[in-house]
Amino acid sequence: MLGIYLDNVRKTTPLVHNITNYVTVNDVANVLLACGGSPIMSDDIQDVEDITSICGGLNINIGTLNQNTIPSMFAAGKKANALGHPVLLDPVGAGASTLRTQTALKLLEEVKFTVVRGNISEIKTLAAGSGTTKGVDADVADAVTEENLDSSVAFAKAVAARFGVVVAITGAIDLVTDGKTCYVIRNGRPEMGKITGTGCQLSGLTTAYVVANPEHPLEAAAAAVASMGLAGEIGWSNMLPTDGNSTYRNRIIDAIFHMDGAALDKGAKYEVR
Amino acid sequence: MLGIYLDNVRKTTPLVHNITNYVTVNDVANVLLACGGSPIMSDDIQDVEDITSICGGLNINIGTLNQNTIPSMFAAGKKANALGHPVLLDPVGAGASTLRTQTALKLLEEVKFTVVRGNISEIKTLAAGSGTTKGVDADVADAVTEENLDSSVAFAKAVAARFGVVVAITGAIDLVTDGKTCYVIRNGRPEMGKITGTGCQLSGLTTAYVVANPEHPLEAAAAAVASMGLAGEIGWSNMLPTDGNSTYRNRIIDAIFHMDGAALDKGAKYEVR
Amino acid sequence: MLGIYLDNVRKTTPLVHNITNYVTVNDVANVLLACGGSPIMSDDIQDVEDITSICGGLNINIGTLNQNTIPSMFAAGKKANALGHPVLLDPVGAGASTLRTQTALKLLEEVKFTVVRGNISEIKTLAAGSGTTKGVDADVADAVTEENLDSSVAFAKAVAARFGVVVAITGAIDLVTDGKTCYVIRNGRPEMGKITGTGCQLSGLTTAYVVANPEHPLEAAAAAVASMGLAGEIGWSNMLPTDGNSTYRNRIIDAIFHMDGAALDKGAKYEVR
Repeated sequence: MLGIYLDNVRKTTPLVHNITNYVTVNDVANVLLACGGSPIMSDDIQDVEDITSICGGLNINIGTLNQNTIPSMFAAGKKANALGHPVLLDPVGAGASTLRTQTALKLLEEVKFTVVRGNISEIKTLAAGSGTTKGVDADVADAVTEENLDSSVAFAKAVAARFGVVVAITGAIDLVTDGKTCYVIRNGRPEMGKITGTGCQLSGLTTAYVVANPEHPLEAAAAAVASMGLAGEIGWSNMLPTDGNSTYRNRIIDAIFHMDGAALDKGAKYEVR
Repeated sequence: MLGIYLDNVRKTTPLVHNITNYVTVNDVANVLLACGGSPIMSDDIQDVEDITSICGGLNINIGTLNQNTIPSMFAAGKKANALGHPVLLDPVGAGASTLRTQTALKLLEEVKFTVVRGNISEIKTLAAGSGTTKGVDADVADAVTEENLDSSVAFAKAVAARFGVVVAITGAIDLVTDGKTCYVIRNGRPEMGKITGTGCQLSGLTTAYVVANPEHPLEAAAAAVASMGLAGEIGWSNMLPTDGNSTYRNRIIDAIFHMDGAALDKGAKYEVR
Repeated sequence: MLGIYLDNVRKTTPLVHNITNYVTVNDVANVLLACGGSPIMSDDIQDVEDITSICGGLNINIGTLNQNTIPSMFAAGKKANALGHPVLLDPVGAGASTLRTQTALKLLEEVKFTVVRGNISEIKTLAAGSGTTKGVDADVADAVTEENLDSSVAFAKAVAARFGVVVAITGAIDLVTDGKTCYVIRNGRPEMGKITGTGCQLSGLTTAYVVANPEHPLEAAAAAVASMGLAGEIGWSNMLPTDGNSTYRNRIIDAIFHMDGAALDKGAKYEVR
């Protein structure tokens, strides 16, 4: 049952330091508030160590990385490591450019991450050390499906074991694994892909859940992934005929705002492999 | 009939690289998803050439230009040119500062643009080589009206011919011209001016339409302009009494999400001069 | 009666230059449009003096300050001072990092501000010259309450007198004072704290009100604070059962969009001490 991991977020109000892209940053902040966390954004090299020190965890998202913020990611990551804070990596667009791929790989080398969350193409790029991601969305050819589920789970476990992290690969079917146990999660709606930033939001959420459940990073990450998918379902059920992707974005965050552990327990659809 | 140009966007999912301002970037991403395109944002000098290479077109918006992103605009623009990708310029605030005016003019010199989209004050600034735009909105004194329509059309055609681009001047009456033919479009609502970023959103949309219709940049740009105006009308018709500009923003993007070519053909209000 | 100060905004459409954080910038722009103002965002050192020159006032928010934008804050602030424009400081996170605290203090030394708006922890940090703000939210221990109201008003007045500014300390109870007179404002809803950026929005609003009422900075700031709180109440009254913090954000801005001086006069809840 995953609900307890959400309830722990609401009980403890984890403060999350986000170094994230400017495209979806407002939604990341609002979804962190919606789940019961508290967000801070800071990406200047002279600011990040102080800020990460007062937080419980760090969310690094490379969606609009640049020459100023890349050093801040390393500095904040190392400081968080020194303090024992959980750190999440969202390797947005790894495989789409050399800078993104190399930055994500170097971060994985120099910073100890608790969770890496990305789409299947991004995670394949990290596993291979290079890649050809088509933009910030996963390649259709890469998708995790019922047909390739066994091999996908094996792949996810291998990546998690190799990097020593919890890996969350999100898409139509989500996989969350620490290398031994894999949560296969079937919540969500395909229309979530028509909103910018549901992945970024999930990375923020996941960081909050992991901070609030320090002994259970795997289950916390699985709970975050299931709650985002469930919010997508609930938000969709509240859509009016003229609503589109912009309103859907609000309805998903609103659904997180109203969700508690009991609702998550009731709505989460997953198996453990 | 302009609907076909929207349908082509939905059929081909054009990937659009955006170097755009951080004020309205989230709405630009969501409206690109709403119309059937796919957005990527990247503005670091070491990232932009790779990213533009995997995209179909490039949208350059100088709304919050800075010393780091200006070189990226030139690098990405030249790379897109080398690859034959369409490039759009949105000269936000040209005339409001020397940096904005000079950057826009220099971009026009060094990068081959397919479309330039701005308000009348910005386009007048580019034509004159200097200007006195009052901020990021057009001067009332500059407005295209029924009274000055003939001379405004002639001005728009002259600018398009001189720069060798499709010019889209948007306001109460929109003009879209390649120097020979001018679409005079009368969709839209005055209340759209009370939302930040409808112009930025339109620049993103226009880039997607032009990428999806490589043989018809004029018609594609006209279709994008008409669809944005029509979305403003549809979104307004869905407003509840307590809704204001923030909800209107969502309703416009939602209207793009639901629009297809047939709806655009039915709702587009334009003449060709 | 505070309504006249809002009506003056709608009558004069004050142009506000914002150097603000990328987290909440879109909402700041939309709320400025909602109240009848006009926003411009510009933070590059080569751009800010030109932009501030065409505006009526300047809003400096250090929420995501960095090495590039800090010098722009000083340059724009000094230019605005030279032109006699009102300038507002929002010291986001002062006390949470050395960089934030030092930057806010140095701005207060080198730029003449008309208004400083922050939460109680931030203002205490500025008064003390150092601090231990927990992130970007006020410490619960610091909160202005009915129990400590007398001493809080005295503190606010002392800070205002010392820095020669109007101080607006916002929270469950808001205090706005020029050192002599203090407005104690009891509008608002606790749920506003579950939305990112209501404080940033208020700083934008306040700048517009002060620009539109140059002879009455204290009353203008009080009117802005009361109108934001009242919008929070109106927005909340429009909430549907499934609405959460993301939709609430829209409803608050929408409420500002519909508010006029008469509505503010009717709904404002304050006393003067």
